[in-house]
Amino acid sequence: GVRDRKVGDRVVVSCISACGSCSYCREARYGQCLSGGGWVLGHTINGVQAELVRVPFGDLSTYVLPVGLDPGTAVLLADILPTAYEVGVLSAGVSPGDTVVIVGAGPVGLAAVATARLYSPAHIIVVDRDAARLQAAKGLGADITLDAATDVLAGVQEVTGGLGAHVAFEAVGLPETFELCTTVLRPGGRVANIGVHGKPATLHLESLWIKDITITTGLVDTRTTPRLLDLVASGQLEVDSIITHRFGFDEMAEAYDVFSRPQDSGALKVVMFR
Amino acid sequence: GVRDRKVGDRVVVSCISACGSCSYCREARYGQCLSGGGWVLGHTINGVQAELVRVPFGDLSTYVLPVGLDPGTAVLLADILPTAYEVGVLSAGVSPGDTVVIVGAGPVGLAAVATARLYSPAHIIVVDRDAARLQAAKGLGADITLDAATDVLAGVQEVTGGLGAHVAFEAVGLPETFELCTTVLRPGGRVANIGVHGKPATLHLESLWIKDITITTGLVDTRTTPRLLDLVASGQLEVDSIITHRFGFDEMAEAYDVFSRPQDSGALKVVMFR
Amino acid sequence: GVRDRKVGDRVVVSCISACGSCSYCREARYGQCLSGGGWVLGHTINGVQAELVRVPFGDLSTYVLPVGLDPGTAVLLADILPTAYEVGVLSAGVSPGDTVVIVGAGPVGLAAVATARLYSPAHIIVVDRDAARLQAAKGLGADITLDAATDVLAGVQEVTGGLGAHVAFEAVGLPETFELCTTVLRPGGRVANIGVHGKPATLHLESLWIKDITITTGLVDTRTTPRLLDLVASGQLEVDSIITHRFGFDEMAEAYDVFSRPQDSGALKVVMFR
Amino acid sequence: GVRDRKVGDRVVVSCISACGSCSYCREARYGQCLSGGGWVLGHTINGVQAELVRVPFGDLSTYVLPVGLDPGTAVLLADILPTAYEVGVLSAGVSPGDTVVIVGAGPVGLAAVATARLYSPAHIIVVDRDAARLQAAKGLGADITLDAATDVLAGVQEVTGGLGAHVAFEAVGLPETFELCTTVLRPGGRVANIGVHGKPATLHLESLWIKDITITTGLVDTRTTPRLLDLVASGQLEVDSIITHRFGFDEMAEAYDVFSRPQDSGALKVVMFR
Repeated sequence: GVRDRKVGDRVVVSCISACGSCSYCREARYGQCLSGGGWVLGHTINGVQAELVRVPFGDLSTYVLPVGLDPGTAVLLADILPTAYEVGVLSAGVSPGDTVVIVGAGPVGLAAVATARLYSPAHIIVVDRDAARLQAAKGLGADITLDAATDVLAGVQEVTGGLGAHVAFEAVGLPETFELCTTVLRPGGRVANIGVHGKPATLHLESLWIKDITITTGLVDTRTTPRLLDLVASGQLEVDSIITHRFGFDEMAEAYDVFSRPQDSGALKVVMFR
Repeated sequence: GVRDRKVGDRVVVSCISACGSCSYCREARYGQCLSGGGWVLGHTINGVQAELVRVPFGDLSTYVLPVGLDPGTAVLLADILPTAYEVGVLSAGVSPGDTVVIVGAGPVGLAAVATARLYSPAHIIVVDRDAARLQAAKGLGADITLDAATDVLAGVQEVTGGLGAHVAFEAVGLPETFELCTTVLRPGGRVANIGVHGKPATLHLESLWIKDITITTGLVDTRTTPRLLDLVASGQLEVDSIITHRFGFDEMAEAYDVFSRPQDSGALKVVMFR
Repeated sequence: GVRDRKVGDRVVVSCISACGSCSYCREARYGQCLSGGGWVLGHTINGVQAELVRVPFGDLSTYVLPVGLDPGTAVLLADILPTAYEVGVLSAGVSPGDTVVIVGAGPVGLAAVATARLYSPAHIIVVDRDAARLQAAKGLGADITLDAATDVLAGVQEVTGGLGAHVAFEAVGLPETFELCTTVLRPGGRVANIGVHGKPATLHLESLWIKDITITTGLVDTRTTPRLLDLVASGQLEVDSIITHRFGFDEMAEAYDVFSRPQDSGALKVVMFR
Repeated sequence: GVRDRKVGDRVVVSCISACGSCSYCREARYGQCLSGGGWVLGHTINGVQAELVRVPFGDLSTYVLPVGLDPGTAVLLADILPTAYEVGVLSAGVSPGDTVVIVGAGPVGLAAVATARLYSPAHIIVVDRDAARLQAAKGLGADITLDAATDVLAGVQEVTGGLGAHVAFEAVGLPETFELCTTVLRPGGRVANIGVHGKPATLHLESLWIKDITITTGLVDTRTTPRLLDLVASGQLEVDSIITHRFGFDEMAEAYDVFSRPQDSGALKVVMFR
């Protein structure tokens, strides 16, 4: 049963549930829960675009909204903000003065721009094919944007005196963009894979074995969700611009149509309100 | 010029040289030295099977032998011991109770067995095709050996209750053995690549993206060489059995012959004495 | 209610309970639980020398015994082993080749000897007034013991070439022994306080401010209890000798008497069986 | 001899020199150099308010100024900025969302404000007796200032919901301010001592032993100086306001007079130009 939530609480329902007591949960690796938690909602059971929902392990899977937090913004806390922060920024260890390359300016890539900024990197270079998304990246704090059709490696080398980036985030989910991430790094660099992949990628160990590279993958644990909620509520983390459209429940068909045509509609995240 | 070494000092000449003042050396990443150091001897200039040698950046590239340390054993400190320890054991963060899989039981793989044991893992599982090398692995502290021709994944799963290993070391340098390493891991597992690769490998991101995997590559920095020298000199790290043959300088032809036929000769490391 | 334990399970009841969902529990800092957990049993409610007990938050506060583990030994997992390991060894970051000084050879100090050994330090120096306890320390893996009445600093300096120890553990709970720990360290050294203190200590900042010292305090979180249970069950961590006496429930008066006269009786840990 | 610097280079002369090859230098702990480096200039030999100076170990003790960096600002890189960043911010591990208390708003305390901000803490609370210095702290990024004569603990508790701060920096050098730092922390909090102390302080182990506190001390290593130089040159780290007065060499007497009367003159850092 639920112990910590009360009737009437306004909560974020997280994409990750957690039993709280298995060996992974005991290390705060909730995404890898062995006892019926992990990525359940929207994956092994239906998601929550619904008027009522039963949330597994409710205490560890929901978060009470801080006073004053816009419920639309809060939706970003259900998945993409902790994903970008934990699987990207924290796994890669972004540090002040780093040059960070983010490949892919969809919602998760943009959330990575916003959360990487918390660590004051020297440069955030965002790569995408879509000019509008690159523009959105600038609004969230990227200082350099590169069209994916150009010579990205040359662009990164120019910024870094030929040495390469400290950190690269894969936020697309394709083999080519993953390879690009490993190419733009300096020795000692870190690639954090955030994208969801359906195919294998080529890992160029013939050049990478000697370069002190670290590659991380991951499913979000949402262990940072409480802290991110506070950072958003206090205004230190501004991510509202990732939400491009807001609809009522009675406009669901239109919402899905807009979301399915991002190139035309300019949709990033589309939020529906009951 | 050399400041810290005196005529008559007996020293290990390391595979890694270091200027000591570039941005990488300032972080003790000597293997990535930007100013003429890094992997120089035996790579960009000739190595040191010679009676006299000029060592670049002598102060940071040589180590005075502790009293009582066998000069033959000391040769292992020139490369394979710090490589196995830094690029393998420290990069992967071996911890007490971990299950560690080491693929490849050549000299570096065996050095990984010996240095992984310093952290009291629950199991060290070594995989190779050569029965004699697997036997040598047992002598250095592996508790389980698996013939590479068998179902290695099944063997690892049996030991780990189906969950997989915490850590895997690639110590061969082939695409297949690298892939094997990524396969035997549990969620949250770490692959440390120690092998020298000439070809790309396939990275199965379609299954790994969700598994919280960390992959590291690296060239040794030799920052731990002083500490390893002490551990060997005190007898806490016993690695003599990696040296299978010892020759005089006048037996060089025979030494190379033995080393070139490891399957027949059983050679692991062959040491020549002047 | 309890979800993961079944009638008939043999469990260790931990000294630490945990709600599992407060901000500290979400970081696996169970000892600091904000919602009714933390150190409860034997502190804010009665302990468990009883035939029946209600354990708060049973799932996160009990551990199923591995097959074959002696129930007497398991009692050490309820408190002193995870305390010594987490608050001592892990907080101080014991590493291979370190010189570790442990001040106090009571049960927790001895558990620190056993768990520090998992990381292959060069030396474990144990300091106490009681010769029998120093002897017990040797049995658990200390290589050097010093009578507390002698010049301990001189003894440590001799072993470390005048530089001092890497790590010191305070396992007594007195101001003087804490000060001693800060005195025996080399620059960059770490003091982990494990003892329970009733009075303030003097911190010699006039000499320590420049020495890169780290001091840690802590209540055990028991996040490592499952791993320690496995290490004990597999025989890699041998701690039986910390138990000097075993009694039945009907011998409770005698058990307490023996435990109250450690100098005479030689008692370290006294275990009672029902 | 000097290898990397050329006649005509404009350099910062660091307060820390380093041999580069002793066991501490090999771990980038330059402040603890065992071979004639460490804190030498202005300590064991005269400092550098001079027209010519011989710098020990010139390559590792000087830093070429980035193009465009104001030489006055560069002086802050000789000592206080790396001290505040390394001994304060990095030792304490400031993280996004933390509440940071900085006791002392002299030049080092103000440098701590500026460098702590790089990690986006939720709150930076600065405590001092001098209203002008508190005002300067606000200009550098503190959001809350407290007069040291008020109830500082109550002020911190109010901001943190009664739980206490994550991090406290001691930047005064007195026993009372050190004690204050240990008082304002939440469980799990970290105190970084930056101040230079001449007397011991009282460590309240009777309350702190159970609170998971970490205390660090340290001398700066200047390993981050290159990165800080870049952050200052790029404008991401704005610290000019710490320099309150600039004088020529011929005004040295006046400069020292101003610096000796900070309460009257409002002097923080006073820079002299040749």
